Order: sequence, then structure tokens, then C-alpha cells
Amino acid sequence: VRVGRVTLVGAGPGDPGLLTVRGCRRLRRADVVVYDRLVDPRLLDEGPPHALRIFTGKMRGVHTLPQGDINALLVAHAHRGKRVVRLKGGDPFVFGRGGEEAEALAAAGVLCEVIPGVSSAIAVPASAGIPVTHRGVASSFAVVTGARKPRKRSWARSPTSPRRPRGRDSRPGRRRDRRGRPPARSARPSASPRRRGAWSLDTPGGSPLDNQSERIRPGAPGMKFETV
Amino acid sequence: VRVGRVTLVGAGPGDPGLLTVRGCRRLRRADVVVYDRLVDPRLLDEGPPHALRIFTGKMRGVHTLPQGDINALLVAHAHRGKRVVRLKGGDPFVFGRGGEEAEALAAAGVLCEVIPGVSSAIAVPASAGIPVTHRGVASSFAVVTGARKPRKRSWARSPTSPRRPRGRDSRPGRRRDRRGRPPARSARPSASPRRRGAWSLDTPGGSPLDNQSERIRPGAPGMKFETV
Repeated sequence: VRVGRVTLVGAGPGDPGLLTVRGCRRLRRADVVVYDRLVDPRLLDEGPPHALRIFTGKMRGVHTLPQGDINALLVAHAHRGKRVVRLKGGDPFVFGRGGEEAEALAAAGVLCEVIPGVSSAIAVPASAGIPVTHRGVASSFAVVTGARKPRKRSWARSPTSPRRPRGRDSRPGRRRDRRGRPPARSARPSASPRRRGAWSLDTPGGSPLDNQSERIRPGAPGMKFETV
Repeated sequence: VRVGRVTLVGAGPGDPGLLTVRGCRRLRRADVVVYDRLVDPRLLDEGPPHALRIFTGKMRGVHTLPQGDINALLVAHAHRGKRVVRLKGGDPFVFGRGGEEAEALAAAGVLCEVIPGVSSAIAVPASAGIPVTHRGVASSFAVVTGARKPRKRSWARSPTSPRRPRGRDSRPGRRRDRRGRPPARSARPSASPRRRGAWSLDTPGGSPLDNQSERIRPGAPGMKFETV
């Protein structure tokens, strides 16, 4: 009996050329490909013709398949001896719930391999010409989710006097470079009051609206950000 | 006359399989490959045999070739009509000074393309089994350089009462997951007083000591961190 396994593959920010060489290799030898909304359809063509392709969905806010069912699906196919490739947009461990899948696989005794990917958090600003770090401008960056539990209040709708953090330069990347461009941030600090305390409203940031098409909306004070 | 160009390619965290498909394609058609210390030698074998290979160095703290000279080198070869691939460890825009090279190329009128790479900041923790985000544990992460200008004081040598930031959960990833593992941080918040104000000493973190071999030293209060 052949032993199955699951490979969590970071598909990158959308462009098929940004898949890793190893990720591509695994994909080409897959029996089963489980993919979500953020994965470019052209990537699926890399899989062998006979491979079973399973779409797990995840539209904005709507999970076509609950996470528990996805985990069970991966386990079931691996137990049948299949080489399963779980294609995830960006990197599997950056807002991809890859950690949960890895835990579920480990708990079920399934061999699991993780192949990191190019994170949209870095590549999307790059595609807009914005380096997330730049000597003398930004020596750190933060990646923060814009999606929160429903009860949150919108950052943009209640711009009440934000508290400044202690220390003049304690917020990464507050300054601007010589061309006046703000250093990039992958997502606007989210809406919850605790975030409002951590970042001032004039912190430069950007929000990748749709990582499949690699657009970015740069941040400016008072500008409304869509959650991603 | 053929028009030269420079492609800044993120070589990923060391493992040649983690180069992107497009990065690999550019490398295979390069006339000149300019690479630094963090690039795995096996990657260089992907280039065509006739390609000129130029090592720019950058040992710990010692720059074999000053950044200005590297910029001039890229410009010179591009002006001679060469397809230049500038291979940089990790992602070109994460502590890679890729932004400076892109600026220099733009100023010299050289066509410049950027191909993002798998960042060690995410892949190195992943290789140690640590997802940088995990549902219910860490919904954000920060990437901070451990290298600072010489005048800095070491974080570990002066652990004087750190001030806590406002708001109980304003620091990303302070909690631990069910297995007691801390969420990952790519580098320990650095030594400067302003950093000490921003992070408490018990903030979980990790420091990738050598991104070529993909080792990680997890953070714990009182543990000394090497700068990277």
C-alpha cells in the first residue's frame, strides 16, 4: 500500500510564475489538488490531467467549505494513499490557516510537508514599486490582518483622536523616503480600539485589495480601507 | 544593439527549490549573474555555463563591495546590452537593499524588473514548524532587523524594566498556542531604547541565525540574541 501525504504549497500572490520550483514539482505529481479562491486557474493546469481538483471556496466572508471539512478531506485522501497538494494563496502560514491544517494532519498521523510561498504581504507592495524596507526609511514592517470578527468598529468610520505610542520613532516606517513615498504596510492596522492605540492615523500603510490581480491602494490619513 | 536589463531576483531562504519559477527562468537566460553571500551555490549552477558570475560578498558586517559599486556594476553590464540577474537572498525588498539598486537603475535609465522571493522572515520559522500567524493566537507579525548602527546597546545586556505598550493585546502574537509554542517573530526587537519601549521583554520571538541553513533560535526572556 502506498503511503499518502499532504503538501501544503504556497501558491504565491497570484502570478503563476511566482510559484516556487519545488511547489511546481509537487503540483505536477499530485493525485489530488485542493485549492481555494486565491489560487490562479493557470496554476491548476500545471497538475497532471488525471488529478482530482477540489475547490474549497472561501469567497469574501463566505466559507464554501468549513475548515474542519477541508482538514477531513485532506486526511481522507492521504489515508487512501494519494499525493495531495493543498494549494494556498501567498504563503501557507500567513493568514492561510495552514497551521491548523498541519495540526489536523499531524493529529491524524498523516505525513505533511510545507513549502513556503511568496507572500502577497511583500509582493503586492513590490509590484506597486514599494519596498517594504528601505535603508534610512524603514528597518521593519508589520503585517496585520484587516479582517476581524464582525463586532469590530471600522477604523475609517471613527477616526477619534488616536493615542500615540511612546517613543518618537517606535512605530515602524513612520517616515517617508526622498521621493515622498510612504514605506509599505501590507494592510491597514485594523479597526479595533487596541489597534487605534498602537498606530497613529498618519502611519503610512497600504491595503492589498485583491491579491490575485496584485493591486494596492496606498494608505493616507482619512482614507477608507477595505478589509481583505 | 540589444537593450540590456537587470532583474532583481529573490533567491529565497537558501534551498534552491524555493526559487520561483520565473526567477529560475531568468537565471537560465542570464548573461551576468551578480550574487551575494546568502545565495546557495547550487542556484548558480542553474545559470548558463557561459554566464559571468560576480560575487559581491557581504560577510557579517563586512561589505566586500560597497553598495555604490554594486549599483555601478549592474548599470555598466546593462548598458553593454547584457541580461543581468541580480540574485539576492530571501526577497529583494526585505532587508536586501533592493530598493536602492532599483533606484540606481532607474536613475541610470536601465530597465529593471523585480521578481519577489520567499522571505526568510516567514520561511525560516516555518521550517522550524512555527506558523507566523495562527487563528486565535497571532493575527499579525512584525519583521524587525537585528542589525543596527554600531552605537546601539544590546537588548540582552541591559534588560532594564521595559515599559509595556498601552492595551493588553497591542503587541502582535504575545500569546502562546495550545502546545505552548510562541508565535514566531523573525528577529528579536532590536536593542535601541525606542524598541525597548515598544516591546516587552516577554514578547515571544525568534532570530534566524543563518538563513542559508534555515536554523532558528526561538526567543525567551533573558536569552541573548545574535544580530543577523
